[in-house]
Amino acid sequence: MGSGDLYSGYIGKLIEELEKLPGIGTKSAERLAFYIIGLPTERAEKLSNAIVEAKQHIHYCSECFTLTDREICPVCSNSSRDHSTIMVVENTRDLAAYEKTGKYTGVYHVLHGAISPMLGIGPEDIKLKELIVRLRGDVNEVILATNSSLEGEATAMYISKLIKPSGIKVSRIASGVPVGGDLEYIDEVTLLRALDGRTEM
Amino acid sequence: MGSGDLYSGYIGKLIEELEKLPGIGTKSAERLAFYIIGLPTERAEKLSNAIVEAKQHIHYCSECFTLTDREICPVCSNSSRDHSTIMVVENTRDLAAYEKTGKYTGVYHVLHGAISPMLGIGPEDIKLKELIVRLRGDVNEVILATNSSLEGEATAMYISKLIKPSGIKVSRIASGVPVGGDLEYIDEVTLLRALDGRTEM
Repeated sequence: MGSGDLYSGYIGKLIEELEKLPGIGTKSAERLAFYIIGLPTERAEKLSNAIVEAKQHIHYCSECFTLTDREICPVCSNSSRDHSTIMVVENTRDLAAYEKTGKYTGVYHVLHGAISPMLGIGPEDIKLKELIVRLRGDVNEVILATNSSLEGEATAMYISKLIKPSGIKVSRIASGVPVGGDLEYIDEVTLLRALDGRTEM
Repeated sequence: MGSGDLYSGYIGKLIEELEKLPGIGTKSAERLAFYIIGLPTERAEKLSNAIVEAKQHIHYCSECFTLTDREICPVCSNSSRDHSTIMVVENTRDLAAYEKTGKYTGVYHVLHGAISPMLGIGPEDIKLKELIVRLRGDVNEVILATNSSLEGEATAMYISKLIKPSGIKVSRIASGVPVGGDLEYIDEVTLLRALDGRTEM
């Protein structure tokens, strides 16, 4: 008897949908499904509505292409931010990570991906044209904050070569040993990069 | 800037709702939220509907009290099952765990909890009266398969004392199940060994 039969239609369907989410295995999906079924109707509806409403109202910011429910996102519409400094990130979660530091005062540009010949993702598949268009404005510096993965590095390199001829300053966030990181648990590539990027004290 | 402001209303609300689910932390909730926002509308709606529909259609089986969308669950309505043997479990997931072994041919009774003086859960707070009513029928054996936690053991003991005077055979699954273990996470072989080694109480 498969778990579909066992749990009958509606439970099975819910487990199936939850299982499709990233990082949710069969056991977690079952646990979540029974938790949801046990919720007061009002709370289950709140969750269900939050999904549909987020999906309906969220779109790209017309300036930086982050996900937002406004025409222009809170960062881009904030006039006290430095609009001449653009940090390029791969996705909205990366933007959020920097935003949580509370210390970055510039604006962002969200690529929604990284160049990856392996996955068949080329420069035209990410929001790169849109970045180039923005550079026609008053921009002093572009900070490349793509991930320090193979794809992130390749994307940073590509964008750097593309922008440099325009004379705009292009920088790359440092990569090295994370703060609080224990050297013995850090991979060799990171250790070498930290060595190469050493600064005088 | 809190993540509410940062992500704006609808994303923030979705993250908030996902965060309330068991085992989902802030990071997972963010990751799930952005995944859901990135889904085709049709798939997001399927997930949303699955939640509301499961909540709407699922109720207790009128015989064994497992969660089902029918009047009587597939196990209870199966005439080839042995209706004179009742396995008592704490919840529907535990029933599912035994059902997945494919070897148990009796029926179930789902308590929806265990007696726990610590949590203020008494015999009247679980589906125990309903079990006693069932015993008026043609029942040969009651197999107590509550978890081998403190509460599960106490519940088994309580039910055993309650039923024994009636002359019905009462057994407890063997403690092949590790102490403190939750039935739903235990492999099928162990579950079957525990069933085979059940001892009369």
